[in-house]
Amino acid sequence: MARDGAVSVEELLARREPGRSLEAPFYTSREVFDLDMKLIFHRHWIFVAVEAEIPEAGDYVTVEIGTTSVIVVRDDDMNVAAFHNVCRHRGARMLTEPSGVVGKIVCPYHQWTYELDGSLIHAEHMGAGFDRTCHSLKRVNVRSLAGLLYICLADEPPADFDALAEAMTPYLAPHRLAETKVAASIDLIEEGNWKLTMENNRECYHCATNHPELTVSLFEYGFGFAPDDADTDRAAAMEAYERICAEFETRWTREGVPFAEIDRLHGCATGFRTQRLAIDRAGESQTMDTRSACKRLLGSLSEPRLGGLSFWTQPNAWHHLMADHAVTFSAIPLSPDRTLVRTRWLVHRDAVEGVDYDVDNLTEVWRNTNEQDAALVAIGQKGVSSPAYVPGPYSPYTEGLVEKFCAWYVERLSSALSSTSAETAPRAL
Amino acid sequence: MARDGAVSVEELLARREPGRSLEAPFYTSREVFDLDMKLIFHRHWIFVAVEAEIPEAGDYVTVEIGTTSVIVVRDDDMNVAAFHNVCRHRGARMLTEPSGVVGKIVCPYHQWTYELDGSLIHAEHMGAGFDRTCHSLKRVNVRSLAGLLYICLADEPPADFDALAEAMTPYLAPHRLAETKVAASIDLIEEGNWKLTMENNRECYHCATNHPELTVSLFEYGFGFAPDDADTDRAAAMEAYERICAEFETRWTREGVPFAEIDRLHGCATGFRTQRLAIDRAGESQTMDTRSACKRLLGSLSEPRLGGLSFWTQPNAWHHLMADHAVTFSAIPLSPDRTLVRTRWLVHRDAVEGVDYDVDNLTEVWRNTNEQDAALVAIGQKGVSSPAYVPGPYSPYTEGLVEKFCAWYVERLSSALSSTSAETAPRAL
Amino acid sequence: MARDGAVSVEELLARREPGRSLEAPFYTSREVFDLDMKLIFHRHWIFVAVEAEIPEAGDYVTVEIGTTSVIVVRDDDMNVAAFHNVCRHRGARMLTEPSGVVGKIVCPYHQWTYELDGSLIHAEHMGAGFDRTCHSLKRVNVRSLAGLLYICLADEPPADFDALAEAMTPYLAPHRLAETKVAASIDLIEEGNWKLTMENNRECYHCATNHPELTVSLFEYGFGFAPDDADTDRAAAMEAYERICAEFETRWTREGVPFAEIDRLHGCATGFRTQRLAIDRAGESQTMDTRSACKRLLGSLSEPRLGGLSFWTQPNAWHHLMADHAVTFSAIPLSPDRTLVRTRWLVHRDAVEGVDYDVDNLTEVWRNTNEQDAALVAIGQKGVSSPAYVPGPYSPYTEGLVEKFCAWYVERLSSALSSTSAETAPRAL
Repeated sequence: MARDGAVSVEELLARREPGRSLEAPFYTSREVFDLDMKLIFHRHWIFVAVEAEIPEAGDYVTVEIGTTSVIVVRDDDMNVAAFHNVCRHRGARMLTEPSGVVGKIVCPYHQWTYELDGSLIHAEHMGAGFDRTCHSLKRVNVRSLAGLLYICLADEPPADFDALAEAMTPYLAPHRLAETKVAASIDLIEEGNWKLTMENNRECYHCATNHPELTVSLFEYGFGFAPDDADTDRAAAMEAYERICAEFETRWTREGVPFAEIDRLHGCATGFRTQRLAIDRAGESQTMDTRSACKRLLGSLSEPRLGGLSFWTQPNAWHHLMADHAVTFSAIPLSPDRTLVRTRWLVHRDAVEGVDYDVDNLTEVWRNTNEQDAALVAIGQKGVSSPAYVPGPYSPYTEGLVEKFCAWYVERLSSALSSTSAETAPRAL
Repeated sequence: MARDGAVSVEELLARREPGRSLEAPFYTSREVFDLDMKLIFHRHWIFVAVEAEIPEAGDYVTVEIGTTSVIVVRDDDMNVAAFHNVCRHRGARMLTEPSGVVGKIVCPYHQWTYELDGSLIHAEHMGAGFDRTCHSLKRVNVRSLAGLLYICLADEPPADFDALAEAMTPYLAPHRLAETKVAASIDLIEEGNWKLTMENNRECYHCATNHPELTVSLFEYGFGFAPDDADTDRAAAMEAYERICAEFETRWTREGVPFAEIDRLHGCATGFRTQRLAIDRAGESQTMDTRSACKRLLGSLSEPRLGGLSFWTQPNAWHHLMADHAVTFSAIPLSPDRTLVRTRWLVHRDAVEGVDYDVDNLTEVWRNTNEQDAALVAIGQKGVSSPAYVPGPYSPYTEGLVEKFCAWYVERLSSALSSTSAETAPRAL
Repeated sequence: MARDGAVSVEELLARREPGRSLEAPFYTSREVFDLDMKLIFHRHWIFVAVEAEIPEAGDYVTVEIGTTSVIVVRDDDMNVAAFHNVCRHRGARMLTEPSGVVGKIVCPYHQWTYELDGSLIHAEHMGAGFDRTCHSLKRVNVRSLAGLLYICLADEPPADFDALAEAMTPYLAPHRLAETKVAASIDLIEEGNWKLTMENNRECYHCATNHPELTVSLFEYGFGFAPDDADTDRAAAMEAYERICAEFETRWTREGVPFAEIDRLHGCATGFRTQRLAIDRAGESQTMDTRSACKRLLGSLSEPRLGGLSFWTQPNAWHHLMADHAVTFSAIPLSPDRTLVRTRWLVHRDAVEGVDYDVDNLTEVWRNTNEQDAALVAIGQKGVSSPAYVPGPYSPYTEGLVEKFCAWYVERLSSALSSTSAETAPRAL
């Protein structure tokens, strides 16, 4: 794009300085965005939905990643399957609603009809020589991680999802997400690059001033906060925090829920991190009064004071699971400077709205927090778009997870570029 | 545009498989769109208007093809002339309304004034050395085909318009389109590439399910339907249809209107096809009750049961002429994924609204059909934009004319690219 | 951008014909626009604000030039300073309002805090090794020319601003713009390239027909009008005009305000022109009745019949200073085909709205004139976007200043391109 002095993406990646924010083109250029879509979002496991959205056979959701539309459907055997939402005739998008129920998948254009396993069972006027078996819907890889649905658009998805599943299943299992329902879902468009959305999510340096609702329940020390030995002012606060953590650990041990931190945020394709964290005050939930928002607890949990299990996956998701409800977040890039953040609040599938929970109360903390974060991402995008922007230093004490996100991104993009340099791209233009 | 594995447009054209839809870049890429505008829409005869819109001297319409604006005007000798809508001073667009009446063409910026023959007759402050004769408006080629106005933006337009005119004049003449008026005109923007608009127009495979209003009067067998010998279910329906056609042929012969199919859809610059088709039920018109929408028949026709003369021209138009009214359609590309479809309904110029015809009744079928087609084009565009899209097979029985449209397009673009590879483009950037 | 026959910007500049409008890519292409932003708007002195907007310490305005945001602030020593509006931490835009008052500049993201001299005084969690002195806000060059604020985004701004200041200060001083207040400010977006906005500003060939309000007070002969010896019709009008000018010159001499024309519009980086012009009828002000719009005259002026001092600066500004008020205009490119025109009306800072002046009366002439010009710029942009556009001839009698604007632009862009061809650009993508 540059007229002179052009620097390639490879050079930008190679010269990235650890401990500092990325150079501007990573946040602003169309070329990098296209690479992000192709090499990150089309080759990694992407969190897109929850099983709770499609409990019955024929229930589906459609998911859009860039110009790719995917149907995630519960098939007749009650398994979750995923297909490209592209008719094999002339390519029409078949299902145009975000969710619904179907018996078969019928293209509205010329009524080509597919089973829920993707096989073409009807195509009129195609003649005797036409082989339907060559025109099944294209499958998309999909995995349920204890009810959290991840898809991968590559033919050969990263194999290390198995390692993720093995490590995380014991942490997630007690909350039985597959037995929940979606009590609320909100889409928010942030006016910034998806990596600014993720970086914002990976630190709480900004929380104290910007998130009055969230910080009622949240200890800022939780999110990757490393104590600064020189910072004697905080010594007392840290000590109090550690005491509370010890109490929670006793309770977690008693209830048999794993809590040890796992941090595999980089060095692998399917990077993730988990940590069970104390909650302040009543200790129950990320709500305005820190108490459970839903009377019916998740799974067979009976102790409401479990704090919150936080679980982050690269490149685009984070989740908070409490005793009474869970909140899942996905970030989907829309353009170099726009990102969709979809938030879903899950409660026990037998919980009754108005009796067991109130949606306003359930969603108040993250509804507000998301909007505050959107404003921060927007000023971030405006700033890095200035020619005067240069990468600045991350705090070694509060922005360590931001650095790990960037390190993962840089290593994945570098690796994909070097391995694909000899390949040909699927589409020419 | 592609970072790696780039395939040129020439290669995409060369590897196109007959009998299948085009590869995605033909529908989605800016580069192909720019070539379409330059090599198809600026070098072929494009249907843009009807004489009925400009009956009197000084009447004009403005027409936009890409960033080119053209004035089509009836001059003082009652001929139709066309000029670029660009002042020869500093280039301002002079006429900004879609239609109107002028005595002279006066640029609103500095009042440079042109006759309706394009000559500059007034330019103040230009001094003694200024030669007005070097600053006439630039002419655009324009032809009236029995009242249908086609323009060509190239200096040397395709010569085979003469062959088209010779073949088609006898078919069109009985309807005397030059003696009509525009009873209604509707612009619709379809959210798809112009070639998807055209492909949709060239088949009726989709009609039965999607066009309840149109199929009241329409036999789907009409639009290029080829019987499948193996399809015994349709044998009875085809036989009934052929009986009705025979009755119409008798009537057409008696009324002296030509009806033999002409199909020159590819192999030439100015591709076209015509066919006079039976109309179902009352047999008169494409209306909800299949009866004439206008009491006053066109020209000196007296038999209302004439079915409909369909006339398609490459790259962008189709027309249906019945005994009582005609409908003309033009598709103008706006961007890779947006197309303007302009529909005009023509009735005898002496017909009186509210007495001889009712606009709602006249337009009901195509108003609805166009909107249904727009929805189909939109899902077509969304689907082919997915990286998962691959060209699919056309039905040999119902999509033969779609194939002919694509074959024409591919041969014209290939030919233009090979002939211009040595030339220089008129504009640099 | 062009597929074939590509012509570089350098070639387009080299082949530019003096006396004719520019070739289309200068008005329409993204590549030229990016160069305009980089080489014209980021390397020259750009008029952006007036001192009257920030009278007190801590008062600031933010200014956007392309994606660059600048804070112009009155510091604690009552000097005007300018900084990039980009936090040195992760680059967030700090001040998001167009104007306001601050004690310190605090980034809303993580509360990094800067003094009004740009020094970083607070950054939490950065550890003992962090050197705040390396993270001051980046300064932007700013100069006040008798109250008119010009910034330059280059590290080494053109030195000839000093020559401009020396020449212009005596002309501007009597109006004491630093002692005014902004009585009204209007932003208007013109749908055209910024150079069409400027060209339109540099001639009055279009005034007689398009500007009924402006031409009440304006002699069209004023704006660079050169008499055509052959144009005998105008001889009487010119003679009358010269008589009026002589009266004004007597008055200007008596009042001690300089009035001799200075024309350094090209041949230097900081091109400008000034001329004190007669005003028609009452001779006082650019108002509908040509009388003062504000009872309180500017500075210590006591004679209201001073006509108007016009002052134009390359690339983006013009100003009209009368005895009772001044109007300043800046044009800021937004995209190849959109330009922001900001107009400010200044009156004596002690003038009282509703007593000394009425805002509607004060702004009526230029409010209307700007909207009329916006319409002309829009048809200009549409016209030059047509492939049929070719550069046309400027009037030697009324468009001499348009030619000088284009000559300055061509020489500045050519010179910048030849001097930077060996350099590397600051940003790659």
